[in-house]
Amino acid sequence: MSEGLVSGREQRILEIIETTRSKRPRFKDSQVTMSHGAGGKATQTLIEGLFAPAFASESLDQMGDAGVVEIEGLRLALTTDSFVVKPIRFPGGSIGDLAVNGTVNDLAVAGARPAALSLSLILEEGLDAEELRAEVRAIAAAAEVAGVEVITGDTKVVERGHADKMYICTTGVGQIDPRARLSTAAIEPGDKIIVSGSIGAHGTAIMLARGEFELDADIESDTCSLWPAADALLEAGGAGLRCMRDATRGGVATVLNELARASQVTMVVREADVPVDAAVMGASELLGIDPMYVANEGKLVAFVAPGQADGALAALRSVPGCEEAAEIGEVKTEPPGMVLVETAFGGRRVMDLLAGDPLPRIC
Amino acid sequence: MSEGLVSGREQRILEIIETTRSKRPRFKDSQVTMSHGAGGKATQTLIEGLFAPAFASESLDQMGDAGVVEIEGLRLALTTDSFVVKPIRFPGGSIGDLAVNGTVNDLAVAGARPAALSLSLILEEGLDAEELRAEVRAIAAAAEVAGVEVITGDTKVVERGHADKMYICTTGVGQIDPRARLSTAAIEPGDKIIVSGSIGAHGTAIMLARGEFELDADIESDTCSLWPAADALLEAGGAGLRCMRDATRGGVATVLNELARASQVTMVVREADVPVDAAVMGASELLGIDPMYVANEGKLVAFVAPGQADGALAALRSVPGCEEAAEIGEVKTEPPGMVLVETAFGGRRVMDLLAGDPLPRIC
Repeated sequence: MSEGLVSGREQRILEIIETTRSKRPRFKDSQVTMSHGAGGKATQTLIEGLFAPAFASESLDQMGDAGVVEIEGLRLALTTDSFVVKPIRFPGGSIGDLAVNGTVNDLAVAGARPAALSLSLILEEGLDAEELRAEVRAIAAAAEVAGVEVITGDTKVVERGHADKMYICTTGVGQIDPRARLSTAAIEPGDKIIVSGSIGAHGTAIMLARGEFELDADIESDTCSLWPAADALLEAGGAGLRCMRDATRGGVATVLNELARASQVTMVVREADVPVDAAVMGASELLGIDPMYVANEGKLVAFVAPGQADGALAALRSVPGCEEAAEIGEVKTEPPGMVLVETAFGGRRVMDLLAGDPLPRIC
Repeated sequence: MSEGLVSGREQRILEIIETTRSKRPRFKDSQVTMSHGAGGKATQTLIEGLFAPAFASESLDQMGDAGVVEIEGLRLALTTDSFVVKPIRFPGGSIGDLAVNGTVNDLAVAGARPAALSLSLILEEGLDAEELRAEVRAIAAAAEVAGVEVITGDTKVVERGHADKMYICTTGVGQIDPRARLSTAAIEPGDKIIVSGSIGAHGTAIMLARGEFELDADIESDTCSLWPAADALLEAGGAGLRCMRDATRGGVATVLNELARASQVTMVVREADVPVDAAVMGASELLGIDPMYVANEGKLVAFVAPGQADGALAALRSVPGCEEAAEIGEVKTEPPGMVLVETAFGGRRVMDLLAGDPLPRIC
């Protein structure tokens, strides 16, 4: 380990992880479990082991947030998400906000200005009409703020008990910005890792809204459109902007792990530099959860070449809602495919993909 | 009624229906019911009374199967559908086939060659992995036959009992064919009504597959891609091809009603000319259901100017699977917004939109 970051014992652990990771994962489970939907290892196995080989799509292989299709020379990004969040309304937002912002944000981090959305609803028989109206209003309002139109839709109804009030699937299409030179595999050693604001609020807000914990804290979801942030980074980062991801299911830790693997680099994160609100930090500690793994619905992670990093960060901080954007680490060479955290106390640890499912149905 | 098709008593009924229809429907229900998802009157009220005003989209107002967005001068169609069919496998197909063909067909009848699909899965915890694999294979196979690639996706898992094995949302994007001059409101008196083959097989197959009826018949779903049929009609129909629709939920009757309203014309259907397989007809009679209201997943209805109708029909019949295509009626002037059926016995009746839900969850 050329950078001397890890001890002998750590190195042996890393070698085992590395060997396991170099194989293409195979989907060998006999049943679907909640963890297949959690965005961690099981989800990755499902995608890489079952979907990507079956559909043999270059776009899917890229494991990006959006697929790319070229029509008559126009490069379009297409992205889809189903939302099954429980409860459907929570402090700071609702399933309707998420459905718009989640899809808009997948386009934004692919470097695509959102052009149009489709909206497909699966409603539970017996759903209160007022709840439906409230979500329709939330969708319309979020779409207006994001500057995108819902141009087509579908509605299905399933019997009472066969869904939880509503599931929403939104799909977005957008033109890939000519300034974008983004690629999952473009990240290089020396690149700076930037987050667009304080992390962990969305997942924590959902957990508290479920009332499963004897904990009361004033935490709101961060759900919002990331296009203004992406736009600022595209402008300021230029060709130095390597890659962007929104840190939803599995949080910042999962994004870093996926990209470390894709680009075969090491991500080194300085824990003390990661912005986390005091209330989120407090709740996380009480719940025993690392906010790095907690979902966000309005935060992106960007990788920027060292020469453009300061300018990109300054541009990002000028975007409303991104005032707390921060550089949280750097890309290194060894060991490839790994995320390491330098703790506030001077220690180092591996921040691996989660195997299990700490927070089901947060989006 | 200038065409003398209806009696005095019928005319009074028609006037009442007409008055009701001239008002924009309002969504006044207090709860969502199964009928809101059935494609009939309740679905229409939900779309016209709640979604269209909220999203204020010209595309949504068109009530077409796809929305249209123009990017850099390129006209794109976008369409989305959630599939909640029960059971997920049935004679002639499965939910995976439907998810691909249903979305491909919405593009096709919008005159758009399918370019790419997104795939969003909501899986039930405990789903057998073999069932998932089978649907992934079905999706991949249907996409290959339809000549379209799945380029992006999403997977969510909900707890046991909160979905039925799987719900699938597919969204498709395609370029609107330069030959297409299609519009919901373009239909004119004198146009011929063409269907691409025998109707009612899909919905009947699903009903029988559920085993709720003591009836055994060899009926398979007609699920298939309609792009070859649409392509042939675009080529042969030219500017005389006014409009196409795939006759899914609510069947041919619902398509005719929607378009009669949109174009403010009368559709006159000759019942004896409507192709229905003997087995489907037999099952329909026993179940007391009119096959005109039964869902298809591989049949379109086309409206063609009289001068191009014969050529369009001949071209359509040369497409594999469309050998039974037929001209089933004609567009007239009075009473506007109405569908009339000339029965085999020389009678006439109004074929209205269904208020209720004869066949929930057939797609």
